[in-house]
Amino acid sequence: MNFQSLRQECYEANMQLPKLGLVLYTFGNVSCIDRKEGVIAIKPSGIDYEALHPEDIVIVDLDGKVADGALRPSSDTNTHLELYRAFSSVGGIVHTHSTFAVAWAQAKRDVPIYGTTHADHLTVDIPCTDFMPDKRIQNYETETGRQIIDCFFKLHLAPAEVPMVLVAGHGPFAWGPTAAKAVYNARILEELCKMAFLTESINPETPRIKNSLVQKHYLRKHGKNAYYGQKG
Amino acid sequence: MNFQSLRQECYEANMQLPKLGLVLYTFGNVSCIDRKEGVIAIKPSGIDYEALHPEDIVIVDLDGKVADGALRPSSDTNTHLELYRAFSSVGGIVHTHSTFAVAWAQAKRDVPIYGTTHADHLTVDIPCTDFMPDKRIQNYETETGRQIIDCFFKLHLAPAEVPMVLVAGHGPFAWGPTAAKAVYNARILEELCKMAFLTESINPETPRIKNSLVQKHYLRKHGKNAYYGQKG
Amino acid sequence: MNFQSLRQECYEANMQLPKLGLVLYTFGNVSCIDRKEGVIAIKPSGIDYEALHPEDIVIVDLDGKVADGALRPSSDTNTHLELYRAFSSVGGIVHTHSTFAVAWAQAKRDVPIYGTTHADHLTVDIPCTDFMPDKRIQNYETETGRQIIDCFFKLHLAPAEVPMVLVAGHGPFAWGPTAAKAVYNARILEELCKMAFLTESINPETPRIKNSLVQKHYLRKHGKNAYYGQKG
Amino acid sequence: MNFQSLRQECYEANMQLPKLGLVLYTFGNVSCIDRKEGVIAIKPSGIDYEALHPEDIVIVDLDGKVADGALRPSSDTNTHLELYRAFSSVGGIVHTHSTFAVAWAQAKRDVPIYGTTHADHLTVDIPCTDFMPDKRIQNYETETGRQIIDCFFKLHLAPAEVPMVLVAGHGPFAWGPTAAKAVYNARILEELCKMAFLTESINPETPRIKNSLVQKHYLRKHGKNAYYGQKG
Repeated sequence: MNFQSLRQECYEANMQLPKLGLVLYTFGNVSCIDRKEGVIAIKPSGIDYEALHPEDIVIVDLDGKVADGALRPSSDTNTHLELYRAFSSVGGIVHTHSTFAVAWAQAKRDVPIYGTTHADHLTVDIPCTDFMPDKRIQNYETETGRQIIDCFFKLHLAPAEVPMVLVAGHGPFAWGPTAAKAVYNARILEELCKMAFLTESINPETPRIKNSLVQKHYLRKHGKNAYYGQKG
Repeated sequence: MNFQSLRQECYEANMQLPKLGLVLYTFGNVSCIDRKEGVIAIKPSGIDYEALHPEDIVIVDLDGKVADGALRPSSDTNTHLELYRAFSSVGGIVHTHSTFAVAWAQAKRDVPIYGTTHADHLTVDIPCTDFMPDKRIQNYETETGRQIIDCFFKLHLAPAEVPMVLVAGHGPFAWGPTAAKAVYNARILEELCKMAFLTESINPETPRIKNSLVQKHYLRKHGKNAYYGQKG
Repeated sequence: MNFQSLRQECYEANMQLPKLGLVLYTFGNVSCIDRKEGVIAIKPSGIDYEALHPEDIVIVDLDGKVADGALRPSSDTNTHLELYRAFSSVGGIVHTHSTFAVAWAQAKRDVPIYGTTHADHLTVDIPCTDFMPDKRIQNYETETGRQIIDCFFKLHLAPAEVPMVLVAGHGPFAWGPTAAKAVYNARILEELCKMAFLTESINPETPRIKNSLVQKHYLRKHGKNAYYGQKG
Repeated sequence: MNFQSLRQECYEANMQLPKLGLVLYTFGNVSCIDRKEGVIAIKPSGIDYEALHPEDIVIVDLDGKVADGALRPSSDTNTHLELYRAFSSVGGIVHTHSTFAVAWAQAKRDVPIYGTTHADHLTVDIPCTDFMPDKRIQNYETETGRQIIDCFFKLHLAPAEVPMVLVAGHGPFAWGPTAAKAVYNARILEELCKMAFLTESINPETPRIKNSLVQKHYLRKHGKNAYYGQKG
């Protein structure tokens, strides 16, 4: 096993982050999973994107041990692993410190569903977790994953339908069936956060769009009667 | 008929959208009409701009049937068709989710005419439609067109003089005599939305500019005594 | 006379406007004057920057008649001429619709001198003219120049020391000893407008910086004891 | 001695400023120190970045006299020297007029520690100095350094742990063990200022993140148990 295609998928998704303006310097990381082999591929810790090569991507097993690779994996690896274990539909995960998403996370607010750009991607407010209690901080990265999982459990959210979250005081995570789709969702999240910020500035009394319109827009792009995009 | 020049006009106008920063990923679409042939050319649904070729542009007749082309047309095709039928002066239409225009549409506010940059292009506030009643959502795209038409009818607006609109909770549409001019108007709309947002932030009591100045600026660029630009 | 060097100076300064993000499409114009020959060079009206060539620049005499060139001069030519006549130290003038400067002009507010970036360039608030009275609108462009001149007269401002102004409801003009320096001042103006907007958002009670600091900063860069930059 | 490597370090760090969007025109300057030789290298005053070459960098001794180089050093040289004398751990210093940092400096506010992006880099609010009293303005650049030093003394801050500051009414300074690290800190500072501005706009009641989380995040990247990045 040399995990070449898994590394390549992970590498290409990571390289999208600076191109899309979602990261500064070494911020951010993308992983993807091979559930059959029981491993994930993830960005090495603290490496500049312009110095990153496909062979630098670290292969980690589901217990967090390096299975292949010369470098240390992202310090956020345990958050990724926690999410892969709990969210079985997820194939790729991304964490960034993108500006508008961090601002909402710091403000500790769910992002209200104000329009169809939002409803094209998810049918509910983008959730923001609680702040982490002190006793959990010791295992910070694992507990960050659990904060997200608790938040989804409490709000009865399905990770396949709500592919993004804000961690209070920290920043965004997004996911999808592939690493590329996870990065897509991270970019959309940033845009939704910017639009919602501007919307509230223009009209502080803006209501959420009503559910009938939310459902219509979401089902244009998702589910068996979707009619956006090209067939199969 | 191979509709080559119509496809080319449509293709080039679509390719301006990412270049002008008006769209992310597959968002947005431009169409143009050949009224003599009774067809429109429109972007295929869900195709990335960097993967788009002139021959991918779909030719659709005025009943919404594909007349030529291998791909599915934009899911917004029926909105375009509804507008072409009602607005006989229109030769090209564009729909985007550009950031500031979406923010005003989500805030469900007309964009006040605060200055001459606005008056150079239209003499009234940029109108925002009502929210769509539930009973209309079934035929969503056609009804989106009708929302716009109703809005123009109610406000006594002429589409040749007001080449842009915000659909409440959704986003902007713009049009013009050609696809290129429609895209120009979409870019101007985004800038006017940004300027109005900033203007209100700097002075929440900003009045609209008075009509005498509006008329002067508009007539510098439009009508038989226009003196902006080069002669015929 | 073929005015080649005057045209070249004007052309190069105009080409800076899109590069510096100060204009969209055909917006904006730069001129420069040859006071000995009694002519100015100015951008032709309604021409895209990417289609502009040095030989397209129009030479206009001080009465507003085209002295050389095949194209129509900018529709704002009479504003430029009015300013050149009144402000004898000015060698180049620029007009843009840059976003933040337009927002302050639409908000009809002077830009308060909040910091040393501002004081490095001028020692007073950036002035904003009054709205134009209806009776003046007939000769709009000439009267725009007079609005600026009246504003400077009323506030006892010297154009050599205050090289920028906002025209209420319209947008910015800037000038300098050369066309290049005028464009520099237009870019600085846009940045000062953005900084002041953000400053007020962060602290609505921000005071102006005190005059002792204003004078110190201004005199670092201007006057006989200036010590910024390289010697003569 | 030709100071070639010191000049090269200084040159490369200066050239990052326009690339990172932290400066306009000739604004800003970076220096670095060779403490063994008792000299610093610093950008020459008023030179455009695109015209800058490594050999233009000026070598100045710790009394402020030019030790090598044909050009005048930055007018801010005495501020740099004052900081090098007081902050013995510092190897490089940068001054910019970056937009969001200037806005906070003009608003004369410390930047509150609202999230982990901030805590990854420092554990306290980014300090803002007092306004300079009139009697100090005579020796403006030296006194700017002293304002910063007084501020750190008063707040019991260690420059090695708090590598950035805002000078009230003026703008940011940042530093680090090398010129490159100083520029990194200046870029982070600008991002933290933008994020904090947005955070307060989204939720004016946003609390600071609690100290337990601050410490955890800071110690992930700093100190002997740091586990971010690659080993030695």
